[in-house]
Amino acid sequence: MQNDATIWSKNSLPDAVTVRLPAWVKDFVPASAVYPADEDRMRLAIALSRENVVRKTGGPFGAAVFEEDTGRLVSVGVNSVERLRNSVLHAEIMALMLAQASVGSFTLHGRGTHSHVLITSCEPCAMCLGALLWSGVRRIVCGARREAALAIGFEEGPVFAESYQYLEARGISIVRGLLADEAEAVLRLYQERDGLIYNA
Amino acid sequence: MQNDATIWSKNSLPDAVTVRLPAWVKDFVPASAVYPADEDRMRLAIALSRENVVRKTGGPFGAAVFEEDTGRLVSVGVNSVERLRNSVLHAEIMALMLAQASVGSFTLHGRGTHSHVLITSCEPCAMCLGALLWSGVRRIVCGARREAALAIGFEEGPVFAESYQYLEARGISIVRGLLADEAEAVLRLYQERDGLIYNA
Repeated sequence: MQNDATIWSKNSLPDAVTVRLPAWVKDFVPASAVYPADEDRMRLAIALSRENVVRKTGGPFGAAVFEEDTGRLVSVGVNSVERLRNSVLHAEIMALMLAQASVGSFTLHGRGTHSHVLITSCEPCAMCLGALLWSGVRRIVCGARREAALAIGFEEGPVFAESYQYLEARGISIVRGLLADEAEAVLRLYQERDGLIYNA
Repeated sequence: MQNDATIWSKNSLPDAVTVRLPAWVKDFVPASAVYPADEDRMRLAIALSRENVVRKTGGPFGAAVFEEDTGRLVSVGVNSVERLRNSVLHAEIMALMLAQASVGSFTLHGRGTHSHVLITSCEPCAMCLGALLWSGVRRIVCGARREAALAIGFEEGPVFAESYQYLEARGISIVRGLLADEAEAVLRLYQERDGLIYNA
């Protein structure tokens, strides 16, 4: 439990939460790595999702943010809902928060510098799709299909065809189904290991 | 800037972010307060939204989580996107993360203990509506209408009538427009003071 909330002495309301990746991530992700192709980027997201299952640190989902032009890795995220006892901490949310901390801005849009892409091992839920709209990423690449997440008991929330169209109408391009078989194998691995379906 | 991201020495990827309320909140919220009626709860959310504008610590949005039966205040949130340079940190997200830290669980559902309600000074965006679905709150009460947020330039994302129906079908009840005039006055105050529209 790394969720060190500060409790006010005055009225016992919490005023802070620290969001932290699992300790294994630091050694798992190659130093100063560059990922030119979407397939390389997706393999990292899937590897993170699998390792999160194997290490028992959360749900079977991984994500990463890259500079679009250079392929430089900016941040990674793994599902941390159960570990940090926080339903907001899907892999995409972790990756976006850490990417914005890294660039020091509430938008990854870049304003003339680097444009950013988020790669996720599974199609985003309603919360994450909304978060992606506000984040400033210009492109989203998804692995596993939402149906594969639904098949093992995870919900995806109110995501409709119109939701994707809404983002695309605002200049965000979306790729779905990249290396879907590899990504969906991790979902089945989680099920085989009786992983918690936390929003069932 | 209270966003103290830890940077890995190895490859300069960030691994942690601390989410913290503005310092004024601690003195602004009454100690050990109980709010029996929805109107009292909404007045607190609106007061937080107004104070966030007056203190220049973020967008014109406030939220709070209460125990439904006792009226005990569990957590509060104010929009912190600009202050903490993090597009995820809407008022509702702050309140949910802090409430879960307080109860020590990724769900506020209660499992036989207290049921929880989230009160928000403005109808939630797509991200927050999704987050509310996963949070375990059983009821949502909203102040300002989404049209009032749109009128000053904020976007709400892909939220449709079907989105609300989706939550209601899963047992979450939703009240809209409570003290809407008071809540919407804060949106206009933000506009008059040339507050940043961060997702324009």
